[in-house]
Amino acid sequence: MAETVSRFPVAELDDLPPDLRERVAAVAERSGFVPNVFRALGHRPAELRAFLDYHDAVMERADGLSKAERELVVVATSGANSCTYCVVAHGAILRIRAKDPRIADRVATNPWTVELTERERAIVDLALALAVEPATFGETDLDDARDAGLTDDEIWDVGAVTALFALSNRIAHLTALRPNDEFYLMGRLPRG
Amino acid sequence: MAETVSRFPVAELDDLPPDLRERVAAVAERSGFVPNVFRALGHRPAELRAFLDYHDAVMERADGLSKAERELVVVATSGANSCTYCVVAHGAILRIRAKDPRIADRVATNPWTVELTERERAIVDLALALAVEPATFGETDLDDARDAGLTDDEIWDVGAVTALFALSNRIAHLTALRPNDEFYLMGRLPRG
Amino acid sequence: MAETVSRFPVAELDDLPPDLRERVAAVAERSGFVPNVFRALGHRPAELRAFLDYHDAVMERADGLSKAERELVVVATSGANSCTYCVVAHGAILRIRAKDPRIADRVATNPWTVELTERERAIVDLALALAVEPATFGETDLDDARDAGLTDDEIWDVGAVTALFALSNRIAHLTALRPNDEFYLMGRLPRG
Amino acid sequence: MAETVSRFPVAELDDLPPDLRERVAAVAERSGFVPNVFRALGHRPAELRAFLDYHDAVMERADGLSKAERELVVVATSGANSCTYCVVAHGAILRIRAKDPRIADRVATNPWTVELTERERAIVDLALALAVEPATFGETDLDDARDAGLTDDEIWDVGAVTALFALSNRIAHLTALRPNDEFYLMGRLPRG
Amino acid sequence: MAETVSRFPVAELDDLPPDLRERVAAVAERSGFVPNVFRALGHRPAELRAFLDYHDAVMERADGLSKAERELVVVATSGANSCTYCVVAHGAILRIRAKDPRIADRVATNPWTVELTERERAIVDLALALAVEPATFGETDLDDARDAGLTDDEIWDVGAVTALFALSNRIAHLTALRPNDEFYLMGRLPRG
Amino acid sequence: MAETVSRFPVAELDDLPPDLRERVAAVAERSGFVPNVFRALGHRPAELRAFLDYHDAVMERADGLSKAERELVVVATSGANSCTYCVVAHGAILRIRAKDPRIADRVATNPWTVELTERERAIVDLALALAVEPATFGETDLDDARDAGLTDDEIWDVGAVTALFALSNRIAHLTALRPNDEFYLMGRLPRG
Repeated sequence: MAETVSRFPVAELDDLPPDLRERVAAVAERSGFVPNVFRALGHRPAELRAFLDYHDAVMERADGLSKAERELVVVATSGANSCTYCVVAHGAILRIRAKDPRIADRVATNPWTVELTERERAIVDLALALAVEPATFGETDLDDARDAGLTDDEIWDVGAVTALFALSNRIAHLTALRPNDEFYLMGRLPRG
Repeated sequence: MAETVSRFPVAELDDLPPDLRERVAAVAERSGFVPNVFRALGHRPAELRAFLDYHDAVMERADGLSKAERELVVVATSGANSCTYCVVAHGAILRIRAKDPRIADRVATNPWTVELTERERAIVDLALALAVEPATFGETDLDDARDAGLTDDEIWDVGAVTALFALSNRIAHLTALRPNDEFYLMGRLPRG
Repeated sequence: MAETVSRFPVAELDDLPPDLRERVAAVAERSGFVPNVFRALGHRPAELRAFLDYHDAVMERADGLSKAERELVVVATSGANSCTYCVVAHGAILRIRAKDPRIADRVATNPWTVELTERERAIVDLALALAVEPATFGETDLDDARDAGLTDDEIWDVGAVTALFALSNRIAHLTALRPNDEFYLMGRLPRG
Repeated sequence: MAETVSRFPVAELDDLPPDLRERVAAVAERSGFVPNVFRALGHRPAELRAFLDYHDAVMERADGLSKAERELVVVATSGANSCTYCVVAHGAILRIRAKDPRIADRVATNPWTVELTERERAIVDLALALAVEPATFGETDLDDARDAGLTDDEIWDVGAVTALFALSNRIAHLTALRPNDEFYLMGRLPRG
Repeated sequence: MAETVSRFPVAELDDLPPDLRERVAAVAERSGFVPNVFRALGHRPAELRAFLDYHDAVMERADGLSKAERELVVVATSGANSCTYCVVAHGAILRIRAKDPRIADRVATNPWTVELTERERAIVDLALALAVEPATFGETDLDDARDAGLTDDEIWDVGAVTALFALSNRIAHLTALRPNDEFYLMGRLPRG
Repeated sequence: MAETVSRFPVAELDDLPPDLRERVAAVAERSGFVPNVFRALGHRPAELRAFLDYHDAVMERADGLSKAERELVVVATSGANSCTYCVVAHGAILRIRAKDPRIADRVATNPWTVELTERERAIVDLALALAVEPATFGETDLDDARDAGLTDDEIWDVGAVTALFALSNRIAHLTALRPNDEFYLMGRLPRG
């Protein structure tokens, strides 16, 4: 069966404006390949640029949640949204960040009951409430998070990551975005 | 009852970095007040900057959907997500763009069956499918949109606006964002 | 686009039996126009008569909930049911009864988390439970209402208004009932 | 376990105003007992009177749906709403009207797929759409009903019965209304 | 209308392998007829044999829940799953086991709020959680069951019966399995 | 964090009755380890025996669906049910049977829209309808399956596998069954 990267035309590195080419090339150098999300969003360079900026503002922030915790939010909410690209790609990153080859499959398959630390459970519960039932999200959810020890700054972090991937999941569904083959195995094998 | 703008600290114009102060001031000048979303997101300037960039890339795009159609997507999906800030603020903009004082209440209250033109109905159906049921969004939704005459470029527009406001709705729910009083009446009165 | 009042034939004042003509004319005199629900239900005079009787028994009752509280129940449950006629028409009445130009949009858009007094929140929670999830409505809901200070008489009031507008919302959906243009602006402007 | 008729005080025949006493006594004479709904609603005579009027206007109407078809709508929608009183009491009436001792259990347990005639299926589908998913009820539902041969007058009948029992189901849930023991067996045995 | 036992071919007693013929004949002798589930599943003797073995292991177990409690789980979860065969057939068995002619209709119509003893309520709540929302089933559900006095052995019993009828309900839906006429009246009449 | 195999006591090979010990040992020999489901269900040997019999009757049947197609049904419905054990364990088997290292993650994450052959899509659609929405499963689902070329025998196969794993998923949720570590990597690497 045809395995297209996106329902829409994609942009290769050379098709991108110089600033985007440089940023995407830097990612590709680190991971060894160009993640398909950049080729798909590159079809609209202004949107790719805004996405990268938002991504960096939220995912690379120095304070607050750890990087593994941010990926935990991504995988949990993308699992709840049945978003294959985000589960497979960020599942790989979560395995690496958490140094745990099984965490991503467990979180993505059932974020509601997967066994986690109390802090991680509070993070995931807050994220799921905002991702899946935004209409009823409210003070009770914040109180539960605070009771588990999350600061207001960390609560915003959880919310911001959840919000960004509410967007990101929908871009992936819109484009039927295919995960790169490389992601499936990343972080599953012991490092030699 | 206390009527705070956001659950989190807010930034006034003077608290913002110069580039953001300038951009927000320009909006305030046009509308006569600073929309509360800028004060709330200003708590995290990097996220406000990324949001403004994404917003401009998607909502100010020259081609594709008309501006009224983009606001129609915002109001329909924000109604489905029960997002008070986005319904009230973008409802005002939709009334103005569509030159129709009743359209926003009708679309926000029931986006599923509100009487629209065939093209508008196709736009709203596509947006609702992606906003509310992303897991099952697929070829059938795109085929329906194409059958109603939407081009692939317009389909991406609908998807991109829907995705951005999936994020935006969740930021509003996270912060319990209060709409400015001014929005409630904008576009409801005949222009003198 | 054709803007019909109802999917079915409508009755004008002169088409109604004398007792109904008198009752509807009295309403029209107070509000300045004939609310469309009377023209639509007038197609079946026996049903219009029963509806008016039920409405008066529940909405005009002297004891129990205040009139503003009864309208709060109507707008909250009609919002949850996405009923455009009831949200727009009773939203107008709620604005007037509560002397608050913004309350209706806030309650109708998100009845689950709109900021209210503790008593109002208890009223709305009880109403939403019965309106939207009748199968699981039970002692827990009543206990919560009693804990917030509602008497059993007030609880019945909430239930009776909710039940009546479960009917009313469905008549509006059945007939695709169009709100009169006048309702959209009522109660939004300061009284001169 | 205590088997109360209602969560709220009930009215016996002698407690009712004369006009209601006469109407309820007439029903009791026909069925051999006072259906509990009248004792429970009798707590608020004005609401009982309005309910009886609405009931007669909708359920005793000479034209349109047959009496068995009206009861079919009641049992199907009350089954979908998990309303024990209405399923048990109107299940008894449906068995008698349809002269079929098994129809009520089959319709109430699974109104969605129970085997029916094409006309009955169209009636039940229309009723379920309006009862359970009012927000998305619209032209498609009416077109399906018309395609199955229902007239607009019959469609209104289905809608009116559905709307009345949306109210009635919620009154039963509000009061935790207990079905009279007699209903459970009515219409199950061959008439000697 | 044609009243077939199953969408698929059925097996009569004489069509079955000897071991199954003997087991089913023993049931038929006790109840006076061959329950249709055996004729329908007999189309695949290996599956009928496995089903009977699983059924006996779970429903005939000496320890743990009483037989009436096991049937309570069956009727509650089959009601929640709208499974007509299981509700009608096991409703009959529940009436007999619990010596209560009304319990089955009440439990099947609304398992969520039917008035039960505290122990029965805990059993039904646990069963419904696992039957209807397996993804979120977890420690909270077990804690509630333990708080109501259920032992871990009884909890497993509830879970095993629920799991078996998750299978059984789906076989009945797959085959459109028709309940035998005899079941409808069993256990409703006082024993003479 | 404690990583127990099951919420309940587990049985090791030596704890099992001889016939079960032999059957489980045979599986262990093939796979190199004892799958945890056998240790958990071994707590109730009669239920383990019945489960193995049902499993063999349905999953090892010579005719009808291919073995890869049966595993496709298991992974799709277990994904829809968020069942971690079944997704991880049968995902491994599906990768091996389908000779595709990525199929399981794609199917489990989003069974509704994963790109499949027309026949596989029909199988998965039928399975999801029965697994997730049994109440509305009916002739339309069977017609769709037949239109895609499935025979009635294959349709029963899809239904039987779906029903068995409706049971199996719930046993896994009941016991909080932990997948063996070995499953996570099986079938992901090219065979040397």
